[in-house]
Amino acid sequence: MRIKDFGGEFALIDDITRKAKDARVIVGVGDDCAVLDYGAGKYLLWGVDMLCEGDHFRNDWYTPRQIGAKAMESNVSDIAAMGGLPSGALISIALTAETTVEWVEEFYAGMYSVADKYKFDILGGDTTHSIIQTVSITVLGEVEPDNLCLRSGAKPGDLVCATGDLGKSKAGLELLLAKTEGDASGHLQPKCRLAEAQVIAPYANSMIDVSDGLASEVGHICRMSGVGAKIVEENIPISENTRKTAEKLGHNPIDYALHGGEDYELVFTLSSENLKKITLNCPLTVVGEITSKKDVLIESAAGLKPLKGGFNHFA
Amino acid sequence: MRIKDFGGEFALIDDITRKAKDARVIVGVGDDCAVLDYGAGKYLLWGVDMLCEGDHFRNDWYTPRQIGAKAMESNVSDIAAMGGLPSGALISIALTAETTVEWVEEFYAGMYSVADKYKFDILGGDTTHSIIQTVSITVLGEVEPDNLCLRSGAKPGDLVCATGDLGKSKAGLELLLAKTEGDASGHLQPKCRLAEAQVIAPYANSMIDVSDGLASEVGHICRMSGVGAKIVEENIPISENTRKTAEKLGHNPIDYALHGGEDYELVFTLSSENLKKITLNCPLTVVGEITSKKDVLIESAAGLKPLKGGFNHFA
Repeated sequence: MRIKDFGGEFALIDDITRKAKDARVIVGVGDDCAVLDYGAGKYLLWGVDMLCEGDHFRNDWYTPRQIGAKAMESNVSDIAAMGGLPSGALISIALTAETTVEWVEEFYAGMYSVADKYKFDILGGDTTHSIIQTVSITVLGEVEPDNLCLRSGAKPGDLVCATGDLGKSKAGLELLLAKTEGDASGHLQPKCRLAEAQVIAPYANSMIDVSDGLASEVGHICRMSGVGAKIVEENIPISENTRKTAEKLGHNPIDYALHGGEDYELVFTLSSENLKKITLNCPLTVVGEITSKKDVLIESAAGLKPLKGGFNHFA
Repeated sequence: MRIKDFGGEFALIDDITRKAKDARVIVGVGDDCAVLDYGAGKYLLWGVDMLCEGDHFRNDWYTPRQIGAKAMESNVSDIAAMGGLPSGALISIALTAETTVEWVEEFYAGMYSVADKYKFDILGGDTTHSIIQTVSITVLGEVEPDNLCLRSGAKPGDLVCATGDLGKSKAGLELLLAKTEGDASGHLQPKCRLAEAQVIAPYANSMIDVSDGLASEVGHICRMSGVGAKIVEENIPISENTRKTAEKLGHNPIDYALHGGEDYELVFTLSSENLKKITLNCPLTVVGEITSKKDVLIESAAGLKPLKGGFNHFA
């Protein structure tokens, strides 16, 4: 059976997942990172992401430096969303025979720029050959147990919040696909919210980063927490640039925010009292609330309807 | 400049490597795994390997279960060669639209069979799409600091030893390439030497696993240790099956052992006194000795000559 007909990658992941036997595994499959208590006081966070030429990046859109930086930001974002800080990374990379040394140097310069900014080391990896460029980055991080933020901690009554603005990566992607002039930096040069996550983590009940769109991320939090949510469409933070791009291309910017992904903003839930204790150096928007009823809904001018979806690589 | 003209993957790795800033990094780039002292008593071992369809496996040669098992054995082999035991793995995998759910289930069954045998968990990963199947496995392991075996510890006078027999993976590969009947299990179903490595590690001065052939591995040990070596050709352990395959195909079995790779046997160096303290459940052969003169040489009926090479993906 094709993966598509099986229900896509998330159904497949459910199918192949087994429960961890090691009692030191705090979280296995199902969050942004695995969480391990190996007895060092802090918990280890451990994640991995793979990017394939064609599917995740194109050399006619990105400079190699941008590819390296984005690959690393997306990995650090997973650590950030758990409340932790990155400690080190390993890089496995498959290069084509046509790949130049200069490409690799620039790609690494992009990765090092992110590693330097967030103060961690690239500790090695595996370099090999393939017919397309493929990179897989694995990052180890550490988190104080008290600051650990899981997808599974959302409580009814929590406010659902988002950092920054959403849909900007999808807006950039659509500009590039349409070969239309405009600011595609949201797609080409995303930044994760590591510093902000450190401020949020002590107060949040749940947190996730925006890899696959707001709809997907809120769905993950609700499913893992056994709760529902009501998102208010008009509250979703969307930048003027994203709105202009959508208008120019005849799209709905709300769709960019809900289903676009790769924004690497944070979506988190917390009590209204705890919200008052947080001050961020970026916009913070309340986009909805967690409900005890398990439906995930979105409220718009057209009324209340189910909120579904998110990006699926095998749709 | 093409990577080939730059000197291949090892020259490239030298070019992009930077020294780690984190004082807790015991070993960064340059060994089978990174070694980290995060304060838990044992050191963390952390490695990664990428396998690409076409370059590293072919679906017309391997069952998906064999691919999964081999991918995991090769990763555990890196942990074994440092003297450690595996604790957990993350899998990033890119699948094609044509990949079936049954393929993925069998591939995971292969990985789980190895994880179960060596008693560690698969803790998650990343599942995505590409135009070729690509898998990157990252494994965390742990090692008692006293048992840590690096490539860099070889001492003049050490004996150079190998477990099992060498060249069997290359023999299987050549059979498959030549579409000739014969036993290709050395290529399709290699096993690493985790239990043996645990016995060897307390006594060895240096250790490495055979990923790229005996010549390459001895070269790595000598370069990292600042020593040389003399390998005795007639002592290199080669099975009857490997010899027969080489004979059938008109090849020299010594070339299989020296330059084939993917045997996942252990190559290690230790004093002759310590050699007496080791009893393994597999053949153990002294193939040469470490010299203070930095040349890496091989002695054969034709005399003494430099020992070069090993597999290079961009040669």
